[in-house]
Amino acid sequence: MIYFDNAATSWPKPENVLSAMEKCMREYGANPGRGGHKMALEAGRVIFKARESIAKLFNIKNPMNVIFTLNTTEALNLGIKGLLRPGDNVITTSMEHNSVIRPLKALEETGVEVTIVNCNQEGYLNPDDIKKAIKPNTRLIVITFASNVTGTVMPVEEVGKIAREKGIVFMVDAAQGAGIFDIDVEKMNIDLLAFPGHKALLGPQGTGGLFIREGINLKPLKEGGTGSSSEMITQPDIVPDKYESGTPNTVGIAGLSAGVEFILEKGIHNIRRKEEELTEYMLEGLKEIGNIKIYGPKSAKDRAAVISINIGEMDSGEVSYILDRVYGIATRAGLHCAGLAHRTIGSFNQGTVRFSFGYFNTKEEVDSALDALRNIASEV
Amino acid sequence: MIYFDNAATSWPKPENVLSAMEKCMREYGANPGRGGHKMALEAGRVIFKARESIAKLFNIKNPMNVIFTLNTTEALNLGIKGLLRPGDNVITTSMEHNSVIRPLKALEETGVEVTIVNCNQEGYLNPDDIKKAIKPNTRLIVITFASNVTGTVMPVEEVGKIAREKGIVFMVDAAQGAGIFDIDVEKMNIDLLAFPGHKALLGPQGTGGLFIREGINLKPLKEGGTGSSSEMITQPDIVPDKYESGTPNTVGIAGLSAGVEFILEKGIHNIRRKEEELTEYMLEGLKEIGNIKIYGPKSAKDRAAVISINIGEMDSGEVSYILDRVYGIATRAGLHCAGLAHRTIGSFNQGTVRFSFGYFNTKEEVDSALDALRNIASEV
Repeated sequence: MIYFDNAATSWPKPENVLSAMEKCMREYGANPGRGGHKMALEAGRVIFKARESIAKLFNIKNPMNVIFTLNTTEALNLGIKGLLRPGDNVITTSMEHNSVIRPLKALEETGVEVTIVNCNQEGYLNPDDIKKAIKPNTRLIVITFASNVTGTVMPVEEVGKIAREKGIVFMVDAAQGAGIFDIDVEKMNIDLLAFPGHKALLGPQGTGGLFIREGINLKPLKEGGTGSSSEMITQPDIVPDKYESGTPNTVGIAGLSAGVEFILEKGIHNIRRKEEELTEYMLEGLKEIGNIKIYGPKSAKDRAAVISINIGEMDSGEVSYILDRVYGIATRAGLHCAGLAHRTIGSFNQGTVRFSFGYFNTKEEVDSALDALRNIASEV
Repeated sequence: MIYFDNAATSWPKPENVLSAMEKCMREYGANPGRGGHKMALEAGRVIFKARESIAKLFNIKNPMNVIFTLNTTEALNLGIKGLLRPGDNVITTSMEHNSVIRPLKALEETGVEVTIVNCNQEGYLNPDDIKKAIKPNTRLIVITFASNVTGTVMPVEEVGKIAREKGIVFMVDAAQGAGIFDIDVEKMNIDLLAFPGHKALLGPQGTGGLFIREGINLKPLKEGGTGSSSEMITQPDIVPDKYESGTPNTVGIAGLSAGVEFILEKGIHNIRRKEEELTEYMLEGLKEIGNIKIYGPKSAKDRAAVISINIGEMDSGEVSYILDRVYGIATRAGLHCAGLAHRTIGSFNQGTVRFSFGYFNTKEEVDSALDALRNIASEV
């Protein structure tokens, strides 16, 4: 199987991720922060180490401001619903994933005002359009780091500067950026950073997180046991406990920690360079095949390692199916949980066939995909 | 290490749980329900199989009514916050975990009326007290299946009957019951059943779930990508998608599924019998040691495999620390995220030392614990 669905979940994982998970399950898989016996303490240490590694990766000063969640979607819901109140305005873009759009639409019912700024057909956001959309009641700007449909990298640093100048909370959905790009919450003025554990951070599914800048006080999504202040019948106010009720996914976080260690060791710029090269190589190859429409930025420099295409008017699901069944190539077809983004780039009815690369993909695999597409395109 | 902290997280896990997780990570760890390639389809199949096994265990008619969550706490929050609206009354007990009490206290701020029915000093709930507390605006009754402090088994079937007669939604927190007792949502009239994956169901941390009876329509805790109806910018209304936004913990659910298979194979009555025998054996042994106070029901028949004790006036944390460091025995001291339960049984200031057994514990291990306690008690 050639796996080109890394924008959904990265695969395979580095060997140290698997061994960290097995070690947790076999040796110390108890409840962190809940009980003082050796196994519980070791679980607590492993989770703290994960917070430290993630803090290092994103230049977060205090590891306790890293909150673990089930996935990026939960992190986005926590940030968005935890912050916004009826009467607030929130600004977002037309390239967002449903994990941003749907919570906003749910809040709209409660009196939150949602402004969606349009991006162009390649998915680009003009930061000036964000600036123009700001109102006195704008409380939050939330944008994706890079589109999961076209890979288009957003002007995060520019928007961060605008938000900071206006005193507006700035949230970034790093589902397609974390672990590939050098995301620096200080330099980029990011107040809330939602990230997945199971994509480019190379951890297992069931992990993700939210950086919450010191001083931002969110309403928790869930209350419950925190292993702290057990005597209180209300939620304690200390971080990360306030936002992490119930037993955490220790085995998942142990794996995620190993994934982040792998990235820190390889160097994030080396990872990005490799993925950019693969993307450039595929884009060049695609241009030589007739009847293929490529969506998004022309240059690999301007996109994450995500390429959406269509072959003539062929149904994207059919192309993806043939790639899987005939050629053993895993891609994802359709709307990728981002209908609005497909409306923006003009592929809402057809969907697209999405190729997304990871650190372990090779040029030979891209060659196989190009051969397969050449065959399919010639038979249309 | 002798592990007596199974009420927090069970350990060790059956070997088939570990192998199911490794298989997922190595062979098919892609996104279920999101993409039609072979790996994604296999992930979807494994998750559906997990729903089926859990449905079988709890006598749930439609596996699609089993929702996966990060842990029991999330399941409880989803049920409680998804159902209750300002003006509603909710009835619960004084033996609940903070995962029930804290969400209720948070809702109280929004105008939900919370009634807490007192249990006696052994943790027993009198079902008549629930009946008496019912008001015209009572929308929900939520009780634990068994106390995580004393093991006291609650009269779930009786309360379920009362709730059904009055047309009130009945929710059960099965954190300490699932995988040990024969929980039957039909026979017990349970409408919402929150359960952990990582305790007696023998799966890994990062898993849990909620059974939602057909016809009960909850407000989701989180909206986002569901892999379904991607064209909609609002949350789709179909189950389980409506309540499961974002990438699920496939590797965790694969492990949980294997844990449930292990239970179905061994037979839940055999598991219960073994745990009850260990509990009875420990209770008998404890009675022979002077200066030990045992909390909760006298007979093992009336409790889950949980025993809370204190030695004279010794700090529970100190006893637990000595058990760990000197004797290599893992227990949990303090308030166990259930301060109200400790107030009920009269141990709020001292906390308790909690021993909780699992299927893999032995009488020899209990003997070691009794020897250790005898030594500690003799030195007070």
